Amino acid sequence: MLYFIGLGLGDAKDITVKGLEIVKQCSRVYLEAYTSILTVGKDALEEYYGRELILADRDMVEQEADELLRGADISDVAFLVVGDPFGATTHSDLVLRAVNAGIQYRVIHNASILNAVGCCGLQLYNFGETVSIVFWTDTWRPESFYDKIKKNRDLGMHTLCLLDIKVKEQSMENLMRGRKVYEPPRYMTVSQASQQLLEIVVNRREQGDELAINEETICVGLARVGAEDQAIRTGTLRQLASSDLGGPLHSMIVTGHLHPLEVDMLQLSAVTSDALKGLRMTDSSTYTS
Amino acid sequence: MLYFIGLGLGDAKDITVKGLEIVKQCSRVYLEAYTSILTVGKDALEEYYGRELILADRDMVEQEADELLRGADISDVAFLVVGDPFGATTHSDLVLRAVNAGIQYRVIHNASILNAVGCCGLQLYNFGETVSIVFWTDTWRPESFYDKIKKNRDLGMHTLCLLDIKVKEQSMENLMRGRKVYEPPRYMTVSQASQQLLEIVVNRREQGDELAINEETICVGLARVGAEDQAIRTGTLRQLASSDLGGPLHSMIVTGHLHPLEVDMLQLSAVTSDALKGLRMTDSSTYTS
Repeated sequence: MLYFIGLGLGDAKDITVKGLEIVKQCSRVYLEAYTSILTVGKDALEEYYGRELILADRDMVEQEADELLRGADISDVAFLVVGDPFGATTHSDLVLRAVNAGIQYRVIHNASILNAVGCCGLQLYNFGETVSIVFWTDTWRPESFYDKIKKNRDLGMHTLCLLDIKVKEQSMENLMRGRKVYEPPRYMTVSQASQQLLEIVVNRREQGDELAINEETICVGLARVGAEDQAIRTGTLRQLASSDLGGPLHSMIVTGHLHPLEVDMLQLSAVTSDALKGLRMTDSSTYTS
Repeated sequence: MLYFIGLGLGDAKDITVKGLEIVKQCSRVYLEAYTSILTVGKDALEEYYGRELILADRDMVEQEADELLRGADISDVAFLVVGDPFGATTHSDLVLRAVNAGIQYRVIHNASILNAVGCCGLQLYNFGETVSIVFWTDTWRPESFYDKIKKNRDLGMHTLCLLDIKVKEQSMENLMRGRKVYEPPRYMTVSQASQQLLEIVVNRREQGDELAINEETICVGLARVGAEDQAIRTGTLRQLASSDLGGPLHSMIVTGHLHPLEVDMLQLSAVTSDALKGLRMTDSSTYTS
């Protein structure tokens, strides 16, 4: 049996009791290490689970899947994923490989950012399509996520924005020389994402577009959701652009139509009492009682 | 401290290790009992947790919140919720009451149907607004969920449909006589939801509307997601209307635009090889390679 086990979002103890029992009994345990991170590292997990973990990066899952699946038809192998195994990233490819190899699989679910964002007080019912905001480079500055946010806003829906993670990146020089030397991991912050959104707002305004969002649009920044030191900050897009929410992982929400109970909940995390006033006054078009 | 603890979706062991530790140490433990159910009952939870659980129905949470919060400023009280505390139903009202009473709160997240549906192979990214399908009566037959499904389909998005739960309902006679006698709980099945959707399709066709879905639209029925005996069935809306997925809870998905990897995953749960053929042939407008 191949077990896909969600680890949840915080630390080693966010695994479910069922998941932990399975980890302890499997012959091999892999830790998916390319789509997300916990606030604790591999060592802390190994110590808590009492098991050696094999790090599985993207190359390994894609190119050495046979090794990963080896023996899973007669013994148990676990594949651990931060969040839920079918949350922000699906592992459909690995599921299909297992099924084709005659290996049964089972999923042990857990919280993922896609449902845990509900803790900020916005109703999950009222979210539209989830978007990813990627790091811009000098030559690559995609704006497609803005257009998806616009579609959601037009329907009154909130938009969860997952922020870019760069792990095992090679510099152009190392890539060209074939050197497997990797840059330090980078995790986009709420501030960086907000700045990119603000730049798009400026561009679109210059182009004369009807704006989906502007500097005063109420957004929610979230950091380390589920961890003891999680941070939630509600404010205007401009305010979030200068907010520091600390270490990774960050994500953010561009709000749509806000219901009164949602406004009351967002006030608990307002950046300043001014931001709070702004919530009721400057964005009143999205607030009905 | 008031702890909101998600129980996940399957049985007693789907609580997280962290959640279980907190349950064992709290002075009182409430079990929210009106928005969802586990496949195991209160007794099984009490035995596994080694704690007495106080059932909290909607009336109690709304009318006796002071009693629920009593002492939570100086000791620990837990409020257990099937799925995630901020999943399908938010408990914002209770959060705000706690904050207003000077009581700190903390959320222990878990899987909810809103993220666990990813197990069927559809990407959570590609879901639009979640809808609720309610039991029709002779005199009340709302169709608003159809219009939301249409909006999502127009954008190519999948729609998760949460199906109605009726607990602690009173018959009209008992209600009028003021007798607190309740009907047996009712949980809408995938078959019932599909039949209601088919009726709407017929109505709208007669009205000459451009149809958002029809009898051949590919849908996914899910039952007891996360439990050992979970069932997933993919087929046309017509096929799901005559499918029996067993005991509660059920939910269903009306698919939008399907990506090739999503089609491959859905084939694993196709009702029949015919349904599978249909997936590639009769709904080809939604499938691009």
